[in-house]
Amino acid sequence: MSVSIIAVREKFLDLQQEIIQTLSGLDQSANCQGNDLETSGGGLSRPRVLSNGKHIEKAAVQFTHSLGPSLPQAATDRNPDLQGLPFQATSISVIVHPRNPHVPTTHMNLRFFLVDSDDPVWYFGGGFDLTPYYPYQEDVIQWHQNARLACGSDKRYRKLKSQCDEYFFLPHRGELRGVGGLFFDDWKEGGFESSQSFVSAVGGAFLLGYKPIFLRRHNTPWNEDEEQWMLMRRGRYAEFNLAVDRGTRYGLQSGRRIEAVLASLPPRAVWKYDHRPEPGSREAELILNYLRPQDWLKDLDKPIDSPL
Amino acid sequence: MSVSIIAVREKFLDLQQEIIQTLSGLDQSANCQGNDLETSGGGLSRPRVLSNGKHIEKAAVQFTHSLGPSLPQAATDRNPDLQGLPFQATSISVIVHPRNPHVPTTHMNLRFFLVDSDDPVWYFGGGFDLTPYYPYQEDVIQWHQNARLACGSDKRYRKLKSQCDEYFFLPHRGELRGVGGLFFDDWKEGGFESSQSFVSAVGGAFLLGYKPIFLRRHNTPWNEDEEQWMLMRRGRYAEFNLAVDRGTRYGLQSGRRIEAVLASLPPRAVWKYDHRPEPGSREAELILNYLRPQDWLKDLDKPIDSPL
Repeated sequence: MSVSIIAVREKFLDLQQEIIQTLSGLDQSANCQGNDLETSGGGLSRPRVLSNGKHIEKAAVQFTHSLGPSLPQAATDRNPDLQGLPFQATSISVIVHPRNPHVPTTHMNLRFFLVDSDDPVWYFGGGFDLTPYYPYQEDVIQWHQNARLACGSDKRYRKLKSQCDEYFFLPHRGELRGVGGLFFDDWKEGGFESSQSFVSAVGGAFLLGYKPIFLRRHNTPWNEDEEQWMLMRRGRYAEFNLAVDRGTRYGLQSGRRIEAVLASLPPRAVWKYDHRPEPGSREAELILNYLRPQDWLKDLDKPIDSPL
Repeated sequence: MSVSIIAVREKFLDLQQEIIQTLSGLDQSANCQGNDLETSGGGLSRPRVLSNGKHIEKAAVQFTHSLGPSLPQAATDRNPDLQGLPFQATSISVIVHPRNPHVPTTHMNLRFFLVDSDDPVWYFGGGFDLTPYYPYQEDVIQWHQNARLACGSDKRYRKLKSQCDEYFFLPHRGELRGVGGLFFDDWKEGGFESSQSFVSAVGGAFLLGYKPIFLRRHNTPWNEDEEQWMLMRRGRYAEFNLAVDRGTRYGLQSGRRIEAVLASLPPRAVWKYDHRPEPGSREAELILNYLRPQDWLKDLDKPIDSPL
């Protein structure tokens, strides 16, 4: 199978459709917005934003396929030789900001870059991660079990899990954005076909991991203090996306539609000066025990490593 | 008069005190927080944050004097030769986020860098700017008249006003952060004494410009839609501070206390996907006629240029 961005594009578009349908099913009260923009040369931007639902305050599920004359710097940090070359890129990215502070925020991204030539340069990237506001250990363990399943091997899971911890880290706060998941970049393991299968597995596993957590927590009663805590943590989310995230920097430089690039921002956020949760509170426990790298599956039996 | 960071530090500390007193007078219901941190070698961080007032939702008035072994990159964009040298820096920065959408947000910063050696390298930087949520032409004209007065000459005002428009610009949105004011960097015009006088004049003029606008608008009734609009515009403010601002990047790299670096962030912010104000509305007028560079004093008589 030869390297084909059209094949990847079709898979991403199907996955976007599936995710929108599932999220709309989880919250039928949410509005859906977003209009397609086709560009000359065959590019397509298809943002979809659900908002103002009873359970989903905002969810962005976006597809892009772009053709560019010259790769911007933020996209080539790891491949400086590519800077300035014409490229194609396609991606799907998802973020869900629920209404209920007991339901975590989640994020997934899958992307494919191609510099087409006699000897094409290509790679996949992506992953998914979870950002809870309250510490529910069973949710986090289930999330990571599902991530390991998507990887097909414990070894691959360990590697991508630790890359996720490394990436979703706020250096200025010294804390993780959430409890992680998977993150990979420059991915071409086993060639195009094998890489594409792996990426599809990650995409397919995303809602399998998130949906049960969402359903388990979305009717939990919450109070104003818990909501304020969620809004403060969302401030951290905005900090990460605007000041740290490579994907957002790439979007800001690439000239893509800004509303699509920044659709991942939280619908509401709060910053309180020098807020510190009370020692012993669940909020303090989140920071102390959840927002630092750790082995969530250490108490579970290791599955036998299966060859992919 | 020889170059002295202690002299500048004392002036900044006095100005901080004066500004806190004035703001506390404008809203006696606001809480004041902030604890001093002295560092070895004589550094001092003195953040003060007013919050939860009837009129002032949050105001940060911060003083810092830091001594560093090695200038971080963000501080030396314009002076790459200085990177890595030991330095001292002192600054005062102010931001006021009012409760009422008809009162503009404002920001002031004054700073002094010194690389001490046989041939000391030093410069001042700073300025002030205004970010209204609703278009009140008389406020903006008064703000800029006051800025011109602080400059002492129309020529200097024109230069610093246009630098302000250039700096407080969101490239990804293609719009100004607000209606501007003054901005200067690498400032050593006329030598240390003259530069320090100018910087003091800017500091002294700041509240002279802001206070009358605050008092004129802070009892204007407002509705929920206007508040939502303010919160959306505050989202833009957060975007600027986190993704664009050189000062914040410097703070994030410098290892300063993060709560102090990010105290300028709005207390609350909102992002709505693809929100566009209704054509002809005051919100649309703000974007159309206020958030682009223009000559606010064009209809006024030019004052005779006075020598400084």
